[in-house]
Amino acid sequence: MPMKWWGWGEEGRSFSLADPERFWSFVSERLGGSGVSQRLESAEQIVLRPCRLGADDLAALRRAVGDRQVSVDRVERAVHSLGKGYRDLVRMRRGEIAEPTDAVAYPRTEEEVAAVLEAAAERGIAVIPFGGGTSVVGGVEPAAGGPAIALDLGRMDRVLYLDRVAGTATVEAGILGPSLERQLNAAGFTLGHFPQSFEYSSLGGWIATRSAGQNSTLYGKIEERVESVRMLFPGGAITTNAVPAAAAGPDFNQIIAGSEGVLGVITRATVRVAPLPERTDYRGYLIPSFEAGVEAAREMLQAGLRPAVLRLSDEPETEATAIMSAGVEGMKASLFILGFDGAEDEVSCCWGRADRIVVGQGGRSLGPGPGEAWLRSRFEAPYLRDLLLDHAIMVDTLETAATWDRYLTLYRAVQKAMLDAMDGRGVAMAHLSHAYADGASVYYTFLARQEEGHELEQWQAVKDAATQAIVDGGGALSHHHGIGVEHRRWMDDYLGGSGIQALRALKGAFDPRRIMNPGKLYEEETRHV
Amino acid sequence: MPMKWWGWGEEGRSFSLADPERFWSFVSERLGGSGVSQRLESAEQIVLRPCRLGADDLAALRRAVGDRQVSVDRVERAVHSLGKGYRDLVRMRRGEIAEPTDAVAYPRTEEEVAAVLEAAAERGIAVIPFGGGTSVVGGVEPAAGGPAIALDLGRMDRVLYLDRVAGTATVEAGILGPSLERQLNAAGFTLGHFPQSFEYSSLGGWIATRSAGQNSTLYGKIEERVESVRMLFPGGAITTNAVPAAAAGPDFNQIIAGSEGVLGVITRATVRVAPLPERTDYRGYLIPSFEAGVEAAREMLQAGLRPAVLRLSDEPETEATAIMSAGVEGMKASLFILGFDGAEDEVSCCWGRADRIVVGQGGRSLGPGPGEAWLRSRFEAPYLRDLLLDHAIMVDTLETAATWDRYLTLYRAVQKAMLDAMDGRGVAMAHLSHAYADGASVYYTFLARQEEGHELEQWQAVKDAATQAIVDGGGALSHHHGIGVEHRRWMDDYLGGSGIQALRALKGAFDPRRIMNPGKLYEEETRHV
Repeated sequence: MPMKWWGWGEEGRSFSLADPERFWSFVSERLGGSGVSQRLESAEQIVLRPCRLGADDLAALRRAVGDRQVSVDRVERAVHSLGKGYRDLVRMRRGEIAEPTDAVAYPRTEEEVAAVLEAAAERGIAVIPFGGGTSVVGGVEPAAGGPAIALDLGRMDRVLYLDRVAGTATVEAGILGPSLERQLNAAGFTLGHFPQSFEYSSLGGWIATRSAGQNSTLYGKIEERVESVRMLFPGGAITTNAVPAAAAGPDFNQIIAGSEGVLGVITRATVRVAPLPERTDYRGYLIPSFEAGVEAAREMLQAGLRPAVLRLSDEPETEATAIMSAGVEGMKASLFILGFDGAEDEVSCCWGRADRIVVGQGGRSLGPGPGEAWLRSRFEAPYLRDLLLDHAIMVDTLETAATWDRYLTLYRAVQKAMLDAMDGRGVAMAHLSHAYADGASVYYTFLARQEEGHELEQWQAVKDAATQAIVDGGGALSHHHGIGVEHRRWMDDYLGGSGIQALRALKGAFDPRRIMNPGKLYEEETRHV
Repeated sequence: MPMKWWGWGEEGRSFSLADPERFWSFVSERLGGSGVSQRLESAEQIVLRPCRLGADDLAALRRAVGDRQVSVDRVERAVHSLGKGYRDLVRMRRGEIAEPTDAVAYPRTEEEVAAVLEAAAERGIAVIPFGGGTSVVGGVEPAAGGPAIALDLGRMDRVLYLDRVAGTATVEAGILGPSLERQLNAAGFTLGHFPQSFEYSSLGGWIATRSAGQNSTLYGKIEERVESVRMLFPGGAITTNAVPAAAAGPDFNQIIAGSEGVLGVITRATVRVAPLPERTDYRGYLIPSFEAGVEAAREMLQAGLRPAVLRLSDEPETEATAIMSAGVEGMKASLFILGFDGAEDEVSCCWGRADRIVVGQGGRSLGPGPGEAWLRSRFEAPYLRDLLLDHAIMVDTLETAATWDRYLTLYRAVQKAMLDAMDGRGVAMAHLSHAYADGASVYYTFLARQEEGHELEQWQAVKDAATQAIVDGGGALSHHHGIGVEHRRWMDDYLGGSGIQALRALKGAFDPRRIMNPGKLYEEETRHV
């Protein structure tokens, strides 16, 4: 089911507030004022630059995938031209799409993908792989320049093979989270990969952007679940070896993961799946401060514990969560959702150790309630964003990861940078949701009253300030959203000149005509022909 | 302390057999005949091609690292020209070094490494990074062609910084296992990386070859322990970001790991260290067959258990081990060494689950004795190889990894290929020693009576047959030895044409003059100038 054009998820589904009156009064108190933002009534009202492809271009694409698998429909083009970040939603609601894709191709087979790439390479048409279209970093929007098409992989969505002995599944890249997980579950397995976009994002997109799921502390980021991957590029394909580990040169899985479509199109992958856990046991704690919670997280991870869920909200996020989900005001503490998946006795043993650590940091158990509540609503936050946007509130998220030694310093610096960029009239809150022995992610949400007429500039100022603070503080330029367009300016600094040079060399090896998703990931000297 | 020139490890240290008479009679019975192989009495007798560097070349190198840090001494050159595989030892014992290195440089700082690379690039001198010199795949031997030097990193061996909060250590690449582990242990940490070469191999070498330690099932291969790495290349350097995880393009750690010196020289790394475990508990089992043991290993890993040691010998290896280490003949079963590291209650909980699985496959506990015996002698096998070579026996090891669905088929195919290549007059035995949820490694030892005068051809025939069977069976071309020269011929097939093209592109980006370890990893079209 396609997402609503102007926001997240299903038409008609929206975020459910425990006590709307209290919530909106809290929002007004914190952000000041009130407002309603306008949006086009219908996607039909969006005015797009006409398709720049000639009849012969379209004929070539139709030969590649079949007549009915190429669309120049205005609405289809529109929704394939932007992702689902704040920047995207602001533009989409207004119908302002400066660089629309010129057509959408819907291949059903790898042969069709190869044929599209060949036709596009011959004709100098940029190709943007499009999975679920949920990028929040501009990963699917066309770059300025020549004509571009979206290659929508949604029809390549089959589980091709499940190997119960190896514990792996070979799957087409266009499959979305729920379909994949449902089929795996039916066979007794799980991928354990639940990004917030889970319901609408695709396996290929996860791999292309190094996605992390909400259970990544146990199951790992998607790149750790990839045993083998196939990427098609203009004129060829690479399929990595399906082996558990190797010492045979650089790891091409880790070159393709994170390549964001600039080297080629991921068409399938063999992923490591795990047996469904005998027991999942998620609980909540209140811990006196974010700092104490971070210390508990570090202790757990360094003691070898691998919770399936480890989600620590800072004080502002805890307060907002309490109001949103329970209508409770004035909460002053950090909410810690913690959970283990595994065999009965393993989960019990882990809980014994974990509880000692959390209690040792002043944590007070809230029992299973908060864990279960979180689990029920884990994919709902983007619906709240739509609601806030309707009320003329700027709301976006950004994230990084840092080693424990830098973690709290970085956390505070980024928070301060965001608040400063909002002139002290915004809210910045955060949580830790992916933990490692050597560090963890930080995931921020920032909100402020929209500055009418300057919505994007206002947002850009916060984004720039936060990103600069992340890089200055030694954080990952992104931990799981990717680079796309939005983080590209920092890549030179982040990777260094020789890293960029190596990326360009890889680009030259796989895509010398430079038709693959131009303008993403790093700054190209020149645009595709 | 440098290794003995003609074999492994310290002069004067040798393998201790429980009952030499029984052992040698077992060997004679299995391999037929007896023999003694000759070797040069002293390294001084090795005749080398004279150094091909001109006085100006040497002067330039001496300006780079200091007069006393460049050697053209014959013995130093000889021991820096070969690794420690069977092919190397056969040649070294005879003093036959067709392509000796022309000089050895011993930098003490990264500035000196950079200066050597610069001088070498200007003068078209190949540079071969040399850590512990323990490669068993020809990774440190000069290629035919122009002049070459060994860049011995042994003097860059400091632990620069230990971060107790992040749980990381920043270390110079030339450090050897014991020195690194001793310093980490003193601070309460371990890297958990114990390859069989541990006592003589270096951190940089481990990373360059994607080494696996004997405890890798818990601690991971070395590439999983690398948080950040620095590589110098002619004219520049790349230092990856020290973050726990990222979504910022391809993972350069995983491009540098496995690069085997062909892109540059690894000079330092920040590695993830773990607290020393509260308890280590290693035990032995006898299990009726290798097949039953493999099934138990698979069950354990897929149930989420991560033993610190999981080492399952097949029946021939179990029989040989019993004779070697206990003088016991006729053992018909598979020896399973299994152990857990961790907190007290964690280890107890894991043992409960693991024991049920092993016993479920027919395993019978032997108590802690075999685990402790294995631990004491874990680095001794290469000394036995020297002893067997003295008795004119061909003995070498090779390894791969495969997914569980292919594991036993591959295991048998490679075993058969080796036995056939030895005309049925050899012994092939194996163990599983690194396990993953989706598969495991297989590590083979093969032995036969040397064919006098044809020692290398005899060996090559077995190696070729085994490697082809590995590739045909869908195994990793190498799981932890690397590619070097010995597996290079198979890389085209293994990586595919586009993978090789991408490797060449990376080479062009980092080392356009092609001076870095030429002839390793993949087939270059042309040699360095």
